[in-house]
Amino acid sequence: MRKVTFGGANSLDNYFARDDDAVDWLMWSDEVGEIMKDFWARMDCIVMGRKTYDVAMKMTPKGKKIKNPYGDLETYVFSRTLEPGAHDGVKIISDDPGKFVAKLKKRKGKEICVLGGGDLAKTLFEAGVIDEIGFNIQPVLLGSGVPLFHRMKRQIDLELLECRALKNGCVYVLYSLKHE
Amino acid sequence: MRKVTFGGANSLDNYFARDDDAVDWLMWSDEVGEIMKDFWARMDCIVMGRKTYDVAMKMTPKGKKIKNPYGDLETYVFSRTLEPGAHDGVKIISDDPGKFVAKLKKRKGKEICVLGGGDLAKTLFEAGVIDEIGFNIQPVLLGSGVPLFHRMKRQIDLELLECRALKNGCVYVLYSLKHE
Repeated sequence: MRKVTFGGANSLDNYFARDDDAVDWLMWSDEVGEIMKDFWARMDCIVMGRKTYDVAMKMTPKGKKIKNPYGDLETYVFSRTLEPGAHDGVKIISDDPGKFVAKLKKRKGKEICVLGGGDLAKTLFEAGVIDEIGFNIQPVLLGSGVPLFHRMKRQIDLELLECRALKNGCVYVLYSLKHE
Repeated sequence: MRKVTFGGANSLDNYFARDDDAVDWLMWSDEVGEIMKDFWARMDCIVMGRKTYDVAMKMTPKGKKIKNPYGDLETYVFSRTLEPGAHDGVKIISDDPGKFVAKLKKRKGKEICVLGGGDLAKTLFEAGVIDEIGFNIQPVLLGSGVPLFHRMKRQIDLELLECRALKNGCVYVLYSLKHE
């Protein structure tokens, strides 16, 4: 079964982007680069929500053909409003995200990454298809923004797999989910 | 100038208590005990909001005289509704919390701890009187509860002073606030 990881970076006060979706506050370093490299080497598939997809598309330079911002990784975007099917290198999915990801996990392949804000992650947490959470906690209280973890119907117990204090003051944490 | 620390424990999804104020999910261990012992040895003063005070009072056994739940530490409770003055070992304060804590910092004494949920902390963060944040992040997504960090008017940059992964899966982090 392929592993599904909810991964990214957040502020200490649980935001993953500013209210205007900006991520200018994220700190970069060689250590972060190494962690990201190791992370992406394990993945060959990304799932994201429509809002995260919109933000990624906005970052595509104007006049350029819109393309999958994550290169050649298989990318699925869940949306209730976009037309389902293949578009510009991504696949738009209107099916139930929990059931769809459960099916993806059974296919052959490397690991699956859940990107972006908490809307999709909340759905996938509640469907019980996420296996790990890996985040780089930035040394900042943003004060406002797009929350990473949303309210959920139930508590999820975690097991700490890794914790690394980086030189730039970030704290990288990796947890596995204790499934009942 | 006395140092002011916002300290406690939280879930990975930024809650410090369940919706019903329960903290039954907090993990205890000898390591946590050592950190708490060192922490409280540096403090001689607590400030808290009225809601945190109510929760602490609820934990006092029925039939017993209500007393300051924090023993002989000087304790201030900020409230707009309770009558100001000394009650049962605590001092009820109706003054502006930011200005009051700024004055407290100038008095002689050990360090000051800001306890409880984020309502008072938000006010004190915005007033610029908090110096450090020390939290024991528990390996759990509670899914719902009382948020630790509330929305604030501005971003606050932090410096990581300490990060310790505990054997029970908690991550203890200590930050200082970068004041402009």
